[in-house]
Amino acid sequence: MPAQASLSRVDLLSRTFIRTLREDPADAETANHRLLVRGGYVRKAASGIYSYLPLGLRVLRRIEAVVRQEMAAAGCQELLMPALMPRELWDRSGRWADYGDLMFRVVDRKGTEFCLGPTHEELITSLVANELGGHRDLPLRVFQIQTKYRDELRPRSGLVRSRDFVMKDAYTFHADEDSLRETYREMYAAYERVFTRCGLRFRAVEAQAGEMGGGRNQEFMAPTEIGEDLVAFAPNGTYAANLETASAAVPVPVEPGTQSLTRVHTPGAQTVDDVAAFLGTPPGQVLKCLLYKVPAAQRGEVVAVLCPGDREINELKLARVLGATPALLDVADFEAHPSLVRGYVGPHGLASRVSRIVADHYVAAGRDWTIGANEPGYHLTGANLGRDFEADLFADVVNVRAGDASPDDSGPLTLERAVEIGHIFQLGTRYSVPLGATFLDAAGVERPALMGCYGIGISRLMSVVIEQHHDEHGIRWPAELAPYDVQVIPLGRRVDEDLVRSVADMLAGVGLEVLVDDRSGASAGVKFADADLIGAPFQVVLGRRAAEGIAELRTRDRSTVTEVALTELTNVIDGIRTAS
Amino acid sequence: MPAQASLSRVDLLSRTFIRTLREDPADAETANHRLLVRGGYVRKAASGIYSYLPLGLRVLRRIEAVVRQEMAAAGCQELLMPALMPRELWDRSGRWADYGDLMFRVVDRKGTEFCLGPTHEELITSLVANELGGHRDLPLRVFQIQTKYRDELRPRSGLVRSRDFVMKDAYTFHADEDSLRETYREMYAAYERVFTRCGLRFRAVEAQAGEMGGGRNQEFMAPTEIGEDLVAFAPNGTYAANLETASAAVPVPVEPGTQSLTRVHTPGAQTVDDVAAFLGTPPGQVLKCLLYKVPAAQRGEVVAVLCPGDREINELKLARVLGATPALLDVADFEAHPSLVRGYVGPHGLASRVSRIVADHYVAAGRDWTIGANEPGYHLTGANLGRDFEADLFADVVNVRAGDASPDDSGPLTLERAVEIGHIFQLGTRYSVPLGATFLDAAGVERPALMGCYGIGISRLMSVVIEQHHDEHGIRWPAELAPYDVQVIPLGRRVDEDLVRSVADMLAGVGLEVLVDDRSGASAGVKFADADLIGAPFQVVLGRRAAEGIAELRTRDRSTVTEVALTELTNVIDGIRTAS
Repeated sequence: MPAQASLSRVDLLSRTFIRTLREDPADAETANHRLLVRGGYVRKAASGIYSYLPLGLRVLRRIEAVVRQEMAAAGCQELLMPALMPRELWDRSGRWADYGDLMFRVVDRKGTEFCLGPTHEELITSLVANELGGHRDLPLRVFQIQTKYRDELRPRSGLVRSRDFVMKDAYTFHADEDSLRETYREMYAAYERVFTRCGLRFRAVEAQAGEMGGGRNQEFMAPTEIGEDLVAFAPNGTYAANLETASAAVPVPVEPGTQSLTRVHTPGAQTVDDVAAFLGTPPGQVLKCLLYKVPAAQRGEVVAVLCPGDREINELKLARVLGATPALLDVADFEAHPSLVRGYVGPHGLASRVSRIVADHYVAAGRDWTIGANEPGYHLTGANLGRDFEADLFADVVNVRAGDASPDDSGPLTLERAVEIGHIFQLGTRYSVPLGATFLDAAGVERPALMGCYGIGISRLMSVVIEQHHDEHGIRWPAELAPYDVQVIPLGRRVDEDLVRSVADMLAGVGLEVLVDDRSGASAGVKFADADLIGAPFQVVLGRRAAEGIAELRTRDRSTVTEVALTELTNVIDGIRTAS
Repeated sequence: MPAQASLSRVDLLSRTFIRTLREDPADAETANHRLLVRGGYVRKAASGIYSYLPLGLRVLRRIEAVVRQEMAAAGCQELLMPALMPRELWDRSGRWADYGDLMFRVVDRKGTEFCLGPTHEELITSLVANELGGHRDLPLRVFQIQTKYRDELRPRSGLVRSRDFVMKDAYTFHADEDSLRETYREMYAAYERVFTRCGLRFRAVEAQAGEMGGGRNQEFMAPTEIGEDLVAFAPNGTYAANLETASAAVPVPVEPGTQSLTRVHTPGAQTVDDVAAFLGTPPGQVLKCLLYKVPAAQRGEVVAVLCPGDREINELKLARVLGATPALLDVADFEAHPSLVRGYVGPHGLASRVSRIVADHYVAAGRDWTIGANEPGYHLTGANLGRDFEADLFADVVNVRAGDASPDDSGPLTLERAVEIGHIFQLGTRYSVPLGATFLDAAGVERPALMGCYGIGISRLMSVVIEQHHDEHGIRWPAELAPYDVQVIPLGRRVDEDLVRSVADMLAGVGLEVLVDDRSGASAGVKFADADLIGAPFQVVLGRRAAEGIAELRTRDRSTVTEVALTELTNVIDGIRTAS
């Protein structure tokens, strides 16, 4: 089935719908967005909605090819579901209401409601429900590559967050947990192969269960400065986690300090930074003491939470520790608790005024703290745990920071911005129960199938790869994804057309996709600039010495710029490709 | 770019998501619909909306591959536009209003209106408008394969008329008429190659300009009994046309007859059939005389139209002859014209009572007509043109019938039901003017580009091919479209698994896609029935003599059923494929 056989292996730029731009588009704030538009890969059709020009479509198809191969290797079969799905299915899972404004909705001429699918758990489960017989039909693994729709409030950064996007979504069905877990592991490995072949730096992180429901799930995160998520990475270790859930190794407690507790006048200094500046001490030496209330159901408790002044409380972690969602005390709350002195709260003598004191582990790893004195305009210095204050509970309640020790003991954590490029879920029976995907087990008992689902943002990958692979001149495509492997650049009219054609055919003859910049009106400078912008991994320059049978071979990453005999060209390229 | 390389060449049925059904689905009225569902090709997701199971997707991809190759051969470049398009573009062309209920509409969270594209003239024209510079950028030829949406009032017949469907739509842009016409001819030839490779019987017919606007356009029609359109075909000639526009050769006039004009009492016989039955004469001997009014703008003319009693007036043709849309006189009109006797109107003595008498050419090719006597309860027999009545104008105003002479002199026309499978249009500046797709000509003058557009219903093709290629047992896929080339059928447990695998690998080794029916629980009867239902062109049966190295080779069309040595199998298959 050579679906791509129609793509010629040699394209002439003058006859190809490639339009590069000299200027950055006004609305593009990120490198990938600028380069996709300037390089002639995409054009905006509406906010967060793009057309793929021939160059962009070639890259999309190459990503799809990698994903298809790895899905097949993981035993998944391709099918194709519609984007338009009836509301009835989504009511059964409860997600018609849950999705809110993020879901595009459509009413047909008869008044029937549909959505434009943001994902396909409901439809695939309903489809499979009608086809499942006995346990011998399981496991079943299917996937599709298809356009999804989400009405994002703020579409951003080219294809990173768009309102329609190409996604690979796979769904698996199982008779038992072991089968689900085994497939989940195989899909994890397939995802690693996909992202590696796409040339991406990435790490899998444990994630919270979200609107997908179900149990264990992991996100594949690609570090890039445009990421909206912060991810903590162990240096060479196995650990990686979103900031929301990342934990450092528990710090080693230290002996109490020797300074004596001293009351100091700190007029007007209420924040950690103010106090540190006023006293000439590092903010990390000041103890932050935040007061939280937990909901009425928990009897209106006020909880004091301690951490070093240079750290941030992670309220998701705190909520897990408290078993309830906390909220900071507001002005009215302080008015209702006159014994709590706003701006000067500290743990010394606080135990009687609050329900509980929770301290982060780092509090036990420090000494001689500066703390609020619980009276207006005063702090205490030289405060030490055990002698001057106590905590009811020690826990991890702060965000990790770069340099914190990784919990896998592999060294200091780094903190990087990252974009989610894939997500795999163990769903359990979240969808098979409401949508009736049951099977008869070996004993003839009807049971709901266990499910997994697995997504990759195909079009998003294009943007993320560019973020990780570009320089000031343009895109530097990884070999598997480049729209063309080689750009042939004849300079001026000195170079014989037949020679250019024969070089291009020779390259195509060994399976390379070739773009020939045959524009007669373009200067050498324009041709070089466009080749760098478009970003094919190899550039073959046919210039002054072409008639002697010599070309200049350049790699887009600048690691190779060399003269090569035309007779050796394909060998040299092959050598570089094999080595990289 | 081996996008399909992930498809293994050998699939085992027991591990493939193929579910055949013994029973016809309740809602399927046509063969293709029944077979697509029973064969496990598609499943309904909602009215007129389908999921493609792996078998269906394989066929879809094969059709796409044929189309891609032929589009590339015609110099078209592939791109991909979004389905979701802003209203603003469609207001500029005027089609936001024109499309009415046929268009799915969506409002986003900010209140901006979008449609789900039924076609893409507006978006491609707007996209190209921003990229066109001088005349050297033209011609530009692009296409996409993409999902379209139309909210059909009555979705029908599987994928023939569905509400979402995969379409190939191409758009070309030109500096002048010659360029447009040349490309139009090349696309016509490409369409012929596509449909021929898909194994379709088809003919191109001239069509009326519809909502697409513009000039010349032709439909490619595939004859099948499920067609909603009637098409007149010349037997081996070049002529074919939709019934609406088809013309027969002008019949040869005959000498007037010799019967005398005789008044006969025909009480209560007002229709052609009544009169013919009453007088014992064929209906074709009775002259039909219909009275039409043309709109007030044409001074309330009443026009009498004559044709043989066994023919139907074609009001589209009549409108062209009259230069206005005619309407039959109603009861009130007869009351206003008491000289016109309803049910007994005839041309004898009619000239003074109507504005004009128009006769079909066939009236001059007959004699001794029976006509209305213009008095209640009476007709005249033996009426002859020239002697007893005249016409102001002779013209082609009837529908052709099977057996009429083809206008290309190739013999009698046949009339067949047919489905539109492709449509090509010369659009002119219908879209380039409102959407601003202009270029600078050689003299530096800004001019609108001329456009063509060209559609093929990819998913519809799947259904139409099945209508033309099936029998009572199932589908008989043409070679280029089959989901698998060969189905290997081991019978019982007698056949060694390794042998089956080696036969499958041997077939795959010469580039064939192979499905092995390895189901251990299925009887020979079930396996044969499913192989016929699924419809691969070749079946290789491994049975009693397999251990001796002998297989039975069957072609799905039953033209070959023969024992073949395994060593000769690929040669024999290759020979049959080459011969067909």
